Amino acid sequence: MASSLKRIILGQPLATAAEKHERLGKISGLAVFASDALSSVAYGTEEILWILVTAGTAALTLGLPLMVGIVALVVIVAISYWQTIHAYPSGGGAYIVAKDNLGTLPGLIAGAALLIDYVLTVAVSTAAGVAAITSAFPLLYPWRVTLCVLSVIGVTIANLRGLRESGRLFTIPTYWFIGSMFLLILAGLWRVLSGTVQPLPAEHVTATHTLTIFLVLRAFSSGCATLTGIEAVSNGIPAFRQPEPRNASITLAWMAGILGGTSVGMAFLAHVYGAIPRETDTVVSMLARGIFGENLLYFNIQMATALILFLAVNTSFQDFPRLSSILAKDGFMPRQMANRGDRLVFSNGILILAAVSIVLLIMFQGSVNALIPLYAVGVFLSFTLSQAGMVRHWLKEERPAPHHILLNGLGAVSTGVVLLVIASTKFTHGAWMVIILIPIIVLVFLRIHRHYHLVAERLSLAGAARPRIGKNPVVVLVAGIHKGVVEALEYAKSISPNVTALTVDLDPTQTTKLRLRWAEWEPDVPLVVLESPYRSILRPLLEYIDRMERQGEGRYLTVVLPEFIPSHWWEHFLHNQTALLVKAALLFRPGKVTVSVPYHL
Amino acid sequence: MASSLKRIILGQPLATAAEKHERLGKISGLAVFASDALSSVAYGTEEILWILVTAGTAALTLGLPLMVGIVALVVIVAISYWQTIHAYPSGGGAYIVAKDNLGTLPGLIAGAALLIDYVLTVAVSTAAGVAAITSAFPLLYPWRVTLCVLSVIGVTIANLRGLRESGRLFTIPTYWFIGSMFLLILAGLWRVLSGTVQPLPAEHVTATHTLTIFLVLRAFSSGCATLTGIEAVSNGIPAFRQPEPRNASITLAWMAGILGGTSVGMAFLAHVYGAIPRETDTVVSMLARGIFGENLLYFNIQMATALILFLAVNTSFQDFPRLSSILAKDGFMPRQMANRGDRLVFSNGILILAAVSIVLLIMFQGSVNALIPLYAVGVFLSFTLSQAGMVRHWLKEERPAPHHILLNGLGAVSTGVVLLVIASTKFTHGAWMVIILIPIIVLVFLRIHRHYHLVAERLSLAGAARPRIGKNPVVVLVAGIHKGVVEALEYAKSISPNVTALTVDLDPTQTTKLRLRWAEWEPDVPLVVLESPYRSILRPLLEYIDRMERQGEGRYLTVVLPEFIPSHWWEHFLHNQTALLVKAALLFRPGKVTVSVPYHL
Repeated sequence: MASSLKRIILGQPLATAAEKHERLGKISGLAVFASDALSSVAYGTEEILWILVTAGTAALTLGLPLMVGIVALVVIVAISYWQTIHAYPSGGGAYIVAKDNLGTLPGLIAGAALLIDYVLTVAVSTAAGVAAITSAFPLLYPWRVTLCVLSVIGVTIANLRGLRESGRLFTIPTYWFIGSMFLLILAGLWRVLSGTVQPLPAEHVTATHTLTIFLVLRAFSSGCATLTGIEAVSNGIPAFRQPEPRNASITLAWMAGILGGTSVGMAFLAHVYGAIPRETDTVVSMLARGIFGENLLYFNIQMATALILFLAVNTSFQDFPRLSSILAKDGFMPRQMANRGDRLVFSNGILILAAVSIVLLIMFQGSVNALIPLYAVGVFLSFTLSQAGMVRHWLKEERPAPHHILLNGLGAVSTGVVLLVIASTKFTHGAWMVIILIPIIVLVFLRIHRHYHLVAERLSLAGAARPRIGKNPVVVLVAGIHKGVVEALEYAKSISPNVTALTVDLDPTQTTKLRLRWAEWEPDVPLVVLESPYRSILRPLLEYIDRMERQGEGRYLTVVLPEFIPSHWWEHFLHNQTALLVKAALLFRPGKVTVSVPYHL
Repeated sequence: MASSLKRIILGQPLATAAEKHERLGKISGLAVFASDALSSVAYGTEEILWILVTAGTAALTLGLPLMVGIVALVVIVAISYWQTIHAYPSGGGAYIVAKDNLGTLPGLIAGAALLIDYVLTVAVSTAAGVAAITSAFPLLYPWRVTLCVLSVIGVTIANLRGLRESGRLFTIPTYWFIGSMFLLILAGLWRVLSGTVQPLPAEHVTATHTLTIFLVLRAFSSGCATLTGIEAVSNGIPAFRQPEPRNASITLAWMAGILGGTSVGMAFLAHVYGAIPRETDTVVSMLARGIFGENLLYFNIQMATALILFLAVNTSFQDFPRLSSILAKDGFMPRQMANRGDRLVFSNGILILAAVSIVLLIMFQGSVNALIPLYAVGVFLSFTLSQAGMVRHWLKEERPAPHHILLNGLGAVSTGVVLLVIASTKFTHGAWMVIILIPIIVLVFLRIHRHYHLVAERLSLAGAARPRIGKNPVVVLVAGIHKGVVEALEYAKSISPNVTALTVDLDPTQTTKLRLRWAEWEPDVPLVVLESPYRSILRPLLEYIDRMERQGEGRYLTVVLPEFIPSHWWEHFLHNQTALLVKAALLFRPGKVTVSVPYHL
């Protein structure tokens, strides 16, 4: 039944040979790889305003210049990745670039940072997607956590079924979103130029902080969430059509341009409309309502926003399992992460990502605003390590080109400085969790790696002599004499000429009866009766086995247990689970082999 | 660590030979067997009043006559059991008497009824004991459920340690309680005779029912809880000194006398003092406060009451596991119920009783008043069956004595009528649960019995031919070639000349490598490579095994699995649990033996 439920949810298993590889052009490539980055337009400006507004509404005027600064950073990072794409045409994720050029430890740090950020992308994008919906339909606001959890479960099932990053699936929502955003910005500009701007209702907000440099930097840090996802193209170069590096880098440039344009546009509109952030209505929703009125055009903006955010969630559902499987193949994560499930996807990674992000969404009550301080630390750490790795990469060349070193150096230094700004300004607001978690995850990676290394070493046949196993002694544990026991005895005799039957004396009457019947049925197998003053079956048995071991007979001692298999599961409760206990007790004693001979009723 | 914690709580294990048997005289016998019956004095009168008061305070005058009727029933039941004691000198519990004389089904009904009543005795007596404490210390009233649970846990641990029904333990609290009750009644009588009765404060109670015959019968039914425990002496005859039946029957007579005297005394006092039942103060506590004032004499009454009630709880902790073990030996309950634990007690029965009664106490919020409608149905059912069994017993004699038949007949008819009264008046208040539960339990008994019978039949060697097991084929599942695999192969070769290695092709590169190394290391064991288009290890393996089975080689097929045992438990998560999956899949296929050859790292 469980199996057919699985079939209904996941579909029939796919053969390994059924794997398909789609090559993307620039148009479909932009659709597939840009959703994560572009979707941050939905909350980037708002998160800057959330910090500024704590110093009063007057401080909100800083929103636009801050966003311009962030877009400058977008340009620097994009140029850095342009170079990475050409240097690593087979895919240059931060883990690979950092590990190749800086060593294993920086690689693992980048890997840990990315895994954390994929989880946060799921949480933040889901929360923002649901916020887009609840802004349009305020009745749903109290159900936002439930909606978040259901969305994640939906994306999880789609990914377990093997939803691939296909141009077909992504093109329409991505371009719909881009079109809708440009429409909103252009309509807003038209209202500015035609002088028909009706500012949003001014609310009085009590300032709780003074406008310090620190607060401005914190606002900038929050806005840096805009940059997450910008590295996606460089991870996915092999998915492009030939010439891959060229197609990929052009796509990257387009993406950076669209991201920068829409982000600045949104910040400009927020400025002229005087948007003040609110828990129950997103800034994008306020602006769309202010510019279009609450009509179909408004609902179109909300729909497109929600959809691109769920696509961004989906991107993490591709990236997290893929990076986990790479780390697993390198021996830093459990091997099971590299197993492909029925539908050719890394199911374990998908399930772990879903579980952790659902926990986060419930803990933070589905609030983007509460999650954002945790975000971006990981991304910027991986940016810095990746760009620093590129600098090292160029330096290793015979005749390094100075502009290569310079551009990636600029990328490394600027993302590094921003990383320090983010870590220090958001530290007490939640970034500390990520900063503590990264080294812990790296330690776990190293511990796992050591274990696999040790196992491989211990199991290696190098210089090993072939073990000599003679005829081993076999003991059969019997409680009475019946068909199951006779089967077990015959089996024991078939595997060794040296068979002894053991019985534990729990009831002298029963034991005497057994001795008499034994002489009749099995005269050639000796029956040893073990005393058990404390009515335990296990203790006398283990003592006897220890004694045999000291006498040093054979390399292995085989313990045969007659086990009967009842027809119904509940019938197991009606029998002493002696076989199970014996097996568990012998599991940790070297040189003991337990064999259950089943007797089916 | 778990093991040493167990030693601290339960003490060192006791050897079977350490079992002691204490023989009781009449004085200590009364102490051991009367606590359950006598403890009902603590709540018997109160429960009658709880029902009557729903028809207004005027109806409370019926309390005394009803209690007189109940005491008449005590006398009838005691005379019936007097006869049982002489007929069954080795112990005449309801299950045995009903089974012997009426057949298995009535015996099982009596057994089920008794098991339910033991559970309820624990719940009701614990709740009443805690009520005696919270009446004296009202601050503790909000903690009553916690106190109930802690009390049950305390009694459970004492019983798991092997607290026996010893005269030494029981004599002081029982006689202290009897003495205290007589002191209270005599002091109350003195106040009546000296005209110094100060009635308890009259409260206005709104009548919610009219005083119908049905309500009076319901009050009578509630009071019938007084009779629970009266059968204890007849269950425990072998514990008495010789001549056992004489000592036991005299003890029974004393017990009935004391029970009757104190019950009527308490009902009389409640009448003259005009006691109105309340949730937070027991009737005994009100009377003691009214007669003595709130001084040491009052606290003495409450202490003695609480103590005898916990002794009554303890009695059930002896009876439930004992009856379960008898039912288990007869094959109506799981065999484990007859296993004696480290301290020579039937630990499983003790734990089940504790768990069920804790659940009841939490469900009913530790309220005697809420639990009482469930109580007494089981007791009276077992009384009726036991007395009816005795009538049948006498009829089977060659020359039956008419007075024997008459007295047990009177017992059977009167308890039978009361059973009907209880079942009908309390039905909607909770008795329905017990009435539904009894047949369900009996069905489970029968189902279990059928299972054991079937197993015995299937396993019987009668007419069975000795199975011929030739040399069986052995397959070894390998994923690579390392020390663990070599050990497993050598082991396989030691148990059979017919060994095949199987590998599932999940990665063509790995498989090719394996083939090459195989030819070098194990040229004499053929390596079969199984294709797995869906990346499953299990499916191709099971298909291969099915194919082998169809070719009909040998009676058994042995599957050897190399299994390495990591040094730390968490390291298990770093390895695919293939061995476990294969074992689980083969468990239900007849003729398959799985053998794990452990390799300790």
